[in-house]
Amino acid sequence: MNDSDQQRHKPLTTLDRPRELIVACPQFRSGVNLSRIVRTASCCGVERMVVSGRAKVDPEIARDGAERVRLEVHRSLGPALKKLRGEGYKLVGLEQTSNAQCLYEFRFPQRAVLVLGHERQGISDELLALLDLVVEIPVYGLPYSHNVATAAAMAMYEYCRQYPRG
Amino acid sequence: MNDSDQQRHKPLTTLDRPRELIVACPQFRSGVNLSRIVRTASCCGVERMVVSGRAKVDPEIARDGAERVRLEVHRSLGPALKKLRGEGYKLVGLEQTSNAQCLYEFRFPQRAVLVLGHERQGISDELLALLDLVVEIPVYGLPYSHNVATAAAMAMYEYCRQYPRG
Repeated sequence: MNDSDQQRHKPLTTLDRPRELIVACPQFRSGVNLSRIVRTASCCGVERMVVSGRAKVDPEIARDGAERVRLEVHRSLGPALKKLRGEGYKLVGLEQTSNAQCLYEFRFPQRAVLVLGHERQGISDELLALLDLVVEIPVYGLPYSHNVATAAAMAMYEYCRQYPRG
Repeated sequence: MNDSDQQRHKPLTTLDRPRELIVACPQFRSGVNLSRIVRTASCCGVERMVVSGRAKVDPEIARDGAERVRLEVHRSLGPALKKLRGEGYKLVGLEQTSNAQCLYEFRFPQRAVLVLGHERQGISDELLALLDLVVEIPVYGLPYSHNVATAAAMAMYEYCRQYPRG
């Protein structure tokens, strides 16, 4: 039996240095997915997101993340990702591809951009060609793939696990 | 540069044995959260969920999970959890508590029930007292806690990482 007291909203875990993880999103079909990713990013200590197209964040879903995470909106992601690579970021795509590494064994570069794909089309061929690395999450049951915000949460969790203090 | 081809909806990763992970949910405020958890569970190979109260799953969100995951609906979770413990399952709560272990260092029992909390109230004191173990996910930024379906996804991911073949 367990003898524990609930402590909702514990003090936050502090980072020794700012997170060097950036999350990049294409224009999703659903603003709900973007908003969920913004909340998760905020909870993971991520400070920046790079977003393409309309970037309408619902504060009911993103909560404080809507104000805490800086969204840099671009017409298209390619040039923004190239610029980040020039600043030393590794571009890590989250996608099922022919040569993707399994997230279970993947070691994240500390300075990384997590590049997400569109709900239906995934990461475009044009963006895939820009990436330094591709990771995927094993899927054991239908519908063959996780929702994009769910997959993003798993990848952000894995990054935080590897860099618990930033 | 990356030379990879997209392979959306790759063949599923197979398990050597059925998943011994069960997910338990209180009656959530939101059927969206329950439906998201059902999809994630299905993708993680989880076959059973134990759910309290109304358990309305939206197949638009849960997708194939709505048919693939068996939802066992109970008036309250306590008796169902006690029964599972009698069958050798360890009851693992996902909650911020005074003595919760960090998910990063936690070793899941293979035969486990992941017990989730209500969006606002978390896991009730009555259920907390039943648990064998409590784990929590470090939170680095506002709003102090992950959405329940997001936290559930991170915990299911961690379980699958530890038991990649079931």
